[in-house]
Amino acid sequence: MSEFITVTYQTEGKDLYKKAQGIAVGMTVGSWTDLPLARQELLASYLGNVADVRIEREANGIQQGTIAINYPAGNITADIPALLTTVFGKLSMDGKIKLLDIEFPPSLLAQFPGPKFGITGIREKLGVYDRPLLMSIFKSCLGLPLEDLETQFAAQIEGGVDLVKDDEIFFVDNRAPLKERLAAYNRIIEQAGRPVLYAANLTGPVHEIVDRAKYAIENGANCLLLNVLPYGFDILHRLAADPDITVPLMAHPSLAGAFYQAADYGIASPLLLGKLNRLAGADFILYPSPYGSVALEREEALAIADYARTEQSAGAPAFPVPSAGIHPGLVPQLYEDFGTDVIINAGGGVHGHPNGATDGGRAFRAAIDAVVNGQTLQEAATNNAPLAVALDKWGGA
Amino acid sequence: MSEFITVTYQTEGKDLYKKAQGIAVGMTVGSWTDLPLARQELLASYLGNVADVRIEREANGIQQGTIAINYPAGNITADIPALLTTVFGKLSMDGKIKLLDIEFPPSLLAQFPGPKFGITGIREKLGVYDRPLLMSIFKSCLGLPLEDLETQFAAQIEGGVDLVKDDEIFFVDNRAPLKERLAAYNRIIEQAGRPVLYAANLTGPVHEIVDRAKYAIENGANCLLLNVLPYGFDILHRLAADPDITVPLMAHPSLAGAFYQAADYGIASPLLLGKLNRLAGADFILYPSPYGSVALEREEALAIADYARTEQSAGAPAFPVPSAGIHPGLVPQLYEDFGTDVIINAGGGVHGHPNGATDGGRAFRAAIDAVVNGQTLQEAATNNAPLAVALDKWGGA
Repeated sequence: MSEFITVTYQTEGKDLYKKAQGIAVGMTVGSWTDLPLARQELLASYLGNVADVRIEREANGIQQGTIAINYPAGNITADIPALLTTVFGKLSMDGKIKLLDIEFPPSLLAQFPGPKFGITGIREKLGVYDRPLLMSIFKSCLGLPLEDLETQFAAQIEGGVDLVKDDEIFFVDNRAPLKERLAAYNRIIEQAGRPVLYAANLTGPVHEIVDRAKYAIENGANCLLLNVLPYGFDILHRLAADPDITVPLMAHPSLAGAFYQAADYGIASPLLLGKLNRLAGADFILYPSPYGSVALEREEALAIADYARTEQSAGAPAFPVPSAGIHPGLVPQLYEDFGTDVIINAGGGVHGHPNGATDGGRAFRAAIDAVVNGQTLQEAATNNAPLAVALDKWGGA
Repeated sequence: MSEFITVTYQTEGKDLYKKAQGIAVGMTVGSWTDLPLARQELLASYLGNVADVRIEREANGIQQGTIAINYPAGNITADIPALLTTVFGKLSMDGKIKLLDIEFPPSLLAQFPGPKFGITGIREKLGVYDRPLLMSIFKSCLGLPLEDLETQFAAQIEGGVDLVKDDEIFFVDNRAPLKERLAAYNRIIEQAGRPVLYAANLTGPVHEIVDRAKYAIENGANCLLLNVLPYGFDILHRLAADPDITVPLMAHPSLAGAFYQAADYGIASPLLLGKLNRLAGADFILYPSPYGSVALEREEALAIADYARTEQSAGAPAFPVPSAGIHPGLVPQLYEDFGTDVIINAGGGVHGHPNGATDGGRAFRAAIDAVVNGQTLQEAATNNAPLAVALDKWGGA
């Protein structure tokens, strides 16, 4: 029996059902009704079909709605370039059409690596099981000498963060080369006496990224950051599938807005950032939070977290990391929206603390402890000065 | 002296100049006015600046227009992932913003491979100098046994096409594996007694693509097709830069619509398909023609051709291949719009000829000969039956 990949699009046309039929044939075997019977028999297992058509509006002879197409899973090799080319390659250019979702048969999911560590593996690395994790971002990296970055790093660690990540635009690092950076940061982590993950930005030619990742690991990297969309999903997949890549992988959403922001075109963010990153093997999925100025709709942000954490995918459930605009006063909202298995990730909310990044981290940790213990932030702030100062600056629930 | 990459965006905001300043600082060194003087001196060479602000409309307190930012060229490594992450990574998610264009300083252009063969090199390979080239696409590839594909290939060659390309969705080729396909097609080309380029679809894991390309070349490939956006621009760059990749590279626009179709988001098609493909090293740039149902605006289609062929870029000028909806009757329009250095590329316009693909090719070749000799198609059709039949079916200028 054929298994199908079911792909849902939002689109419009004079006759959506006819359009769906055209896609089902045109994006698979090319033509059908005019083929001789012997050819039809030969190609039957490659032929797509229409799974669903929902007309949501109809005006001036144009139907708008969603269509779902079944593509035989055997039409593609188990990789994201083949998948995207097959289900949205040519079609992406065919007028108003947005790729909303893709459902995979279990046999295909099993061929993708998925996250190697996921939520459970990362919690084991950090020894933290019962609260959201806290990550901070360097205030900036580009152009700074190593000693400045070490100072920034140490201040963040002292504040109690569980993870620190490089700035994603950190490509030119000649003032603080990766190997030296790793050695310096690892010394600071050792002095702290507790595990901290530092996500080093992977850079360089795509066909050398796997080797560069191994070099980073040999030199002490315990986590790696990748600009997944600028490099293409496939290299994330290959990193995750490589048994010698023994550290968690963090997917940055760089360039994602070019795909998901338009209402009528592109690829919906839950699919793009939640489902495809998980499939390709991201242990951490960064994306815009629903709170800041660079914001996603709340439903989209929650849907990304659902796809990141669902059991129905490849590998282990991944950590959602809703980012941007996060300050300590938002922690109760984050906890309500995303629960315990989330990374609270802040840049300005740590570095912008009136007393500096260390108190910025402390304020977050106090806020996190408060929400998991059922305290209000105001209660917690009565005996935590950094949190009191943070709430005073940013406000809070 | 710093050299700059100048990046133009279409966007909106309460104060476009302020927005531009925020981007120039925020996407480079992160902050500026609050930095101590010593830090400013350290970071000055990494700081972006505002090159231009053009307010085109203003209503309800919102300014719409274009802004141009100068990014120091030294902020990036010379590769497209670093470029896109730096100039549009985070920014792509920041509300209404479309990346319109990027201008590179010559020193940066010189670090990109650009096309290895380009228009001149390809004309030399084919021995055709004075007319547009003709390419045909297989009617379909997926699921067909090799003997069927051989029959299709031979019929296209007999019609006089200069190039044939695989279907871009041809990932699963177990019924006609690449090595056997190359051997069979090369026998047919040899029998034809003239050079023909066959663009074989490159598939597989991205970090193995360079090796797969070499394997294809060892087995007789004389041209390679790549789904550039699903794989990421960088692997095209690495193929083009590799001295052992001794055949021209053809860039398919698969997935491009997800970037360029929206008016207010994403990346404009001339930059995406024309400039970046050229920079990364595509010898042939496929993209939607302005004529078919899957169409680009005429200005965009011409701008892509301009970026493909300009001298002001990396490597040799590349062939524009405006595709989709092309039939012999459109050849005069194509010639008027794109001149001699263009590939006329047809699928249905070849295979849909009432007398089959061979006469489909012949009709195109007759139409091409007519336009370069200043004949009308009607004149040419009087002593060319395939062209007469084609004009009868599709009409023509």
